[in-house]
Amino acid sequence: MTHKDLIGELANRLDWKQTKVSETLDTFVIVMNEKLSENCQLSIHNFGVFETKKKAERISVNPQTQERYLVPPKIVANFRPSVNVKEHLKNLNT
Amino acid sequence: MTHKDLIGELANRLDWKQTKVSETLDTFVIVMNEKLSENCQLSIHNFGVFETKKKAERISVNPQTQERYLVPPKIVANFRPSVNVKEHLKNLNT
Repeated sequence: MTHKDLIGELANRLDWKQTKVSETLDTFVIVMNEKLSENCQLSIHNFGVFETKKKAERISVNPQTQERYLVPPKIVANFRPSVNVKEHLKNLNT
Repeated sequence: MTHKDLIGELANRLDWKQTKVSETLDTFVIVMNEKLSENCQLSIHNFGVFETKKKAERISVNPQTQERYLVPPKIVANFRPSVNVKEHLKNLNT
């Protein structure tokens, strides 16, 4: 489902124009990005928690040259789904 | 930032009542959960992609009894942040 499909689906459910949904979703994304950039944890009921996570530095090997090099530590965005999301997915066939 | 704080922040930005933000966010969460339960991939511009991912079955060991047991395969929700989220987080000190 593309961004556009999602906006269409939300517009249907909310009985809103797609432009309004699109603008609202944009504001949501801006706030989420701002808060993540401030290292905030963001909790959304029945969906999950967004947070930043530090990935430690590690040694990697260039497969062409066999040279070892250091991959520096970095901060990544992480999503931990809530219990009810996990419950929903339990019913899917693996 | 709790769910309530996030609603407060969005209400400020959008100049909406908190109840309206809360209802809209609930609809968003319902749609996201429904689509994930249908194994859909969901793309949100400038934020990332939500998708389901199959985790393979694996053997684990009960540390108390040393007994080996099979953890069955399962479907989990996964979030892949977009390039611009990664860029934002690059500026954070590790």
